[in-house]
Amino acid sequence: MSQTVGSFLFDYIRAKGAEHVFGIPGDFALPTFRWLQQSGLGIITLTHEPSVGFAADGYARVHGFGVALVTYCVGGLNMLNSVACAYAEKSPLLVLSGGPSPADRKADGLLHHKVRTFDSQRRIYEEVTIANAVLNDPETAAAEIMRVIDAVLEQCRPGYIEIPYDVVDMPIKTPAIINKPAPESDAENLTAMIEDAAMMIGSAKQPVIIADVELHRHGLTPLALAIAEKFNIPIASTLLSKSVISENHPLFIGVYSGSLSNSAVQRYVEDSDCILMLGAFITDVFLGMNTAKINRRNTLIATTEKMRIGYRSYDNVLLTDFLTQLAAAPINKKTPAALPPPAATPKPLTDADRALPINIEQFFRIIGLNITPNTTIVCDTGDALLGAMDLRTASAANFLSDAYYLSMGFAVPAAIGVLAAEPNDRVLAIVGDGAFQMTGIELSTAAKYDMKPIVFVLNNDGYGTQRHILDGPFNEIQRWDYTKLTTLIRHGKSWKADTCGQLEQAIAEAIAADTLCLIEVTIPRDDCSPSLRRMGEELGKLRDKEKRRG
Amino acid sequence: MSQTVGSFLFDYIRAKGAEHVFGIPGDFALPTFRWLQQSGLGIITLTHEPSVGFAADGYARVHGFGVALVTYCVGGLNMLNSVACAYAEKSPLLVLSGGPSPADRKADGLLHHKVRTFDSQRRIYEEVTIANAVLNDPETAAAEIMRVIDAVLEQCRPGYIEIPYDVVDMPIKTPAIINKPAPESDAENLTAMIEDAAMMIGSAKQPVIIADVELHRHGLTPLALAIAEKFNIPIASTLLSKSVISENHPLFIGVYSGSLSNSAVQRYVEDSDCILMLGAFITDVFLGMNTAKINRRNTLIATTEKMRIGYRSYDNVLLTDFLTQLAAAPINKKTPAALPPPAATPKPLTDADRALPINIEQFFRIIGLNITPNTTIVCDTGDALLGAMDLRTASAANFLSDAYYLSMGFAVPAAIGVLAAEPNDRVLAIVGDGAFQMTGIELSTAAKYDMKPIVFVLNNDGYGTQRHILDGPFNEIQRWDYTKLTTLIRHGKSWKADTCGQLEQAIAEAIAADTLCLIEVTIPRDDCSPSLRRMGEELGKLRDKEKRRG
Repeated sequence: MSQTVGSFLFDYIRAKGAEHVFGIPGDFALPTFRWLQQSGLGIITLTHEPSVGFAADGYARVHGFGVALVTYCVGGLNMLNSVACAYAEKSPLLVLSGGPSPADRKADGLLHHKVRTFDSQRRIYEEVTIANAVLNDPETAAAEIMRVIDAVLEQCRPGYIEIPYDVVDMPIKTPAIINKPAPESDAENLTAMIEDAAMMIGSAKQPVIIADVELHRHGLTPLALAIAEKFNIPIASTLLSKSVISENHPLFIGVYSGSLSNSAVQRYVEDSDCILMLGAFITDVFLGMNTAKINRRNTLIATTEKMRIGYRSYDNVLLTDFLTQLAAAPINKKTPAALPPPAATPKPLTDADRALPINIEQFFRIIGLNITPNTTIVCDTGDALLGAMDLRTASAANFLSDAYYLSMGFAVPAAIGVLAAEPNDRVLAIVGDGAFQMTGIELSTAAKYDMKPIVFVLNNDGYGTQRHILDGPFNEIQRWDYTKLTTLIRHGKSWKADTCGQLEQAIAEAIAADTLCLIEVTIPRDDCSPSLRRMGEELGKLRDKEKRRG
Repeated sequence: MSQTVGSFLFDYIRAKGAEHVFGIPGDFALPTFRWLQQSGLGIITLTHEPSVGFAADGYARVHGFGVALVTYCVGGLNMLNSVACAYAEKSPLLVLSGGPSPADRKADGLLHHKVRTFDSQRRIYEEVTIANAVLNDPETAAAEIMRVIDAVLEQCRPGYIEIPYDVVDMPIKTPAIINKPAPESDAENLTAMIEDAAMMIGSAKQPVIIADVELHRHGLTPLALAIAEKFNIPIASTLLSKSVISENHPLFIGVYSGSLSNSAVQRYVEDSDCILMLGAFITDVFLGMNTAKINRRNTLIATTEKMRIGYRSYDNVLLTDFLTQLAAAPINKKTPAALPPPAATPKPLTDADRALPINIEQFFRIIGLNITPNTTIVCDTGDALLGAMDLRTASAANFLSDAYYLSMGFAVPAAIGVLAAEPNDRVLAIVGDGAFQMTGIELSTAAKYDMKPIVFVLNNDGYGTQRHILDGPFNEIQRWDYTKLTTLIRHGKSWKADTCGQLEQAIAEAIAADTLCLIEVTIPRDDCSPSLRRMGEELGKLRDKEKRRG
């Protein structure tokens, strides 16, 4: 059976587990779209390229592999920020771009969409991907396709394939599949690290695991959970990994993020004499915008890139091997100090509560009352995310956010990606008004495919989180009547809620309505989440200390 | 008077002629926004970064210098495509981005918004700018600011300055301004070129000037016009330079773009024995998607990058010097062959016409009936642009489009840039429905600043131009009720026009209404502009020829 570059590409993508491709067509990409259509993979076309990237990223996070197909430069460069987000937060996202033909490149003329050189887009993508290829030669195309896609899945970071509009139709040589030798740990270093880790954990009074995002991306959560359960070690997550394990697990103590955290969780982690940071991204967000007080001596860091206990590093030790062997290490079951109380189950609203105006805290209380095992929550940046810190989700891996890269406008398109992967989930997207003005219009795409997210627009009249840093007229935005968006896109239902009772009622009606729903939630201009308030106070204390010193 | 990095930056920007800065704030950029606000320059904040770039580009094209201020990575990378457009089409656009502090960079941790390295954004911008700087050192900041801004204005291409959030507040050393020696032509090469040009023009039977975009960007149109008038040589423009000279000028023959052109214009240019391509970008669009039939032997190309007559090139000859000396060369006044008839003045609608459904041709006829000397037209890509080919504008430099880079979504944000520069212009933005779904929501910004564009949404139910290339379900878009957008943004008026009479009436009412206006125009799904039809036929003929040969 003879294959073309286009048919092989999509066969290989499907073999690796993707069932949908997100995109926007353009002339250089149209022939590739034709092959995509013939492949039988689902196609979801959005309105604007920044959203294509976020949707494919959201899909990748829940499905394990996401693919975006766009046109040359005007498409690809317009999606760059979303791919940078996937790079920063380790999401296995494959970027496919149409491109000029090898003959065009040889002639080196000025072809529409070209910027500086024909290679400009590929060079730019080098900064946000771990592998890239331009398929100028059908002889090598199969090997190049496999090399890039395998790297994406292995390293959980984006890859880039540019497909000349004519090469895509050419016959391809499918090579014998070469099985690369699997990477191996240095056995002696691994043994030393396991011994040191066992010693550290064995003698610790208050060990704690911080289960971070790499566990989820590389499918290692079950191993980490086995370690926690076997040795009876409490587990915290981070904002970026929130819901990596079920938030109802008896060993789960909450989300840790320096002074952004609930103070009992912060104290428990920072008082620990043995912090096991598994699959951790040590970012400023992880550290509560650098308000964390963690003693390096008491930390063990195990990631795909770095292995360290206290001041000692271990080279060539694989995260999988370390976790596997640690789970089997001879360590006595710990008897942990009293755990912080789990985040309180939210109390049902009283009649008096129903008359109250909504603030961030009440908003998340009411969301908490409506979470079921098939609820997935997608949060945008700002208080839409920080307010969700102590929200108790019901199942593992049902909370998404770009909590490290913090690009506004992630939530609505990412929710579309989640719904493509999990059509039976009840997806709640929570987004500030400023972020909603960026990509909220993408609900048009949800409408086109009859997807049914419930989107909450937290309307605090502008860039609220920024107002707490530095205010000025540049934080103002136009006051939309957000509920009219469903009229514009001719689909869905919308509500506006000013009081807790109205919000409760709107959610009940939205859950009953079998369609896309938008709920505008009025939040006072000067309100903020408890997390943001805690962090502000902590930063204030630090400044005062510095002033006294200066 | 002591200056900071921030105050110096905006003083220098203002001294170089910008009066507004376009942007979206973010934490790394907030301190720079504070200096911007104190500078007294106008601030226009938009909803989404791709629009920020297009607006600043539109402003740059009419005002001579545009500035965009965004935050690190999540802002800057999201604007990359618009800056690539400004690079490809030579627009003097300065990009300012907030950035991490020198101390952050030294510590090399994972700071939010960071992608691969702290230098990633600057490296990416290297591909779409002609000069860049990161202001890590206040000692050298002034020199760096001047170097980048001077290069932007000299080369009419984008530049990039990254401003660490703390450095912006530091005192700056303002250096003595060094006057760089002005570049000079090689005198002998210049003389040789002038002699050869004079000989070519002198002996030509049917010389013609193609006045292209560099004339406009570098302020050289008056020189080119002087040459045309002195020697009596007809002038064509290109899609990218349309309206570079007044389209009512007696020597103006129309827009040339290979077989996309009106056939009389195409014949006149391609039959010419002396085509003077001044300031020309020889792109595939210029060549009517490579359908042009031009004999290189008969061409003179004079640009900022290349000087050539027939098969001979001339090194180190400046475009300004060449044009100045050519205008003074001893060439006899030509008596050109009969010029193609000027594009017909559109005929007023009859009552019978008013009942007709609208197609692209009728749409532009009706637009043509409503053009006044202060009308500026901004066209998006597709038939919104191709249909405008033969539209007769009234004054020079009042037609804008991204006619080479062809990124969809340019027109609405660019119209905002034009209105910031020329608040008294009547700005008509013409945009297809697909492109409108990308950035049309930016009318929210026009509303915020009480700008009054009239926006025409050409609704042909999807990506119409692509349908003529390769059709499939991927060319479908959600059917919006476009007129409801003014309700969503709580501002402006809207109309829907299905017949020519309704369109005529809507335009009359929009002109009378003193507010932002949106007119949805129903275009049949299979309709296309005469230009697109001509090109399709030409490409068909070429294919048939190839088939007969094969």
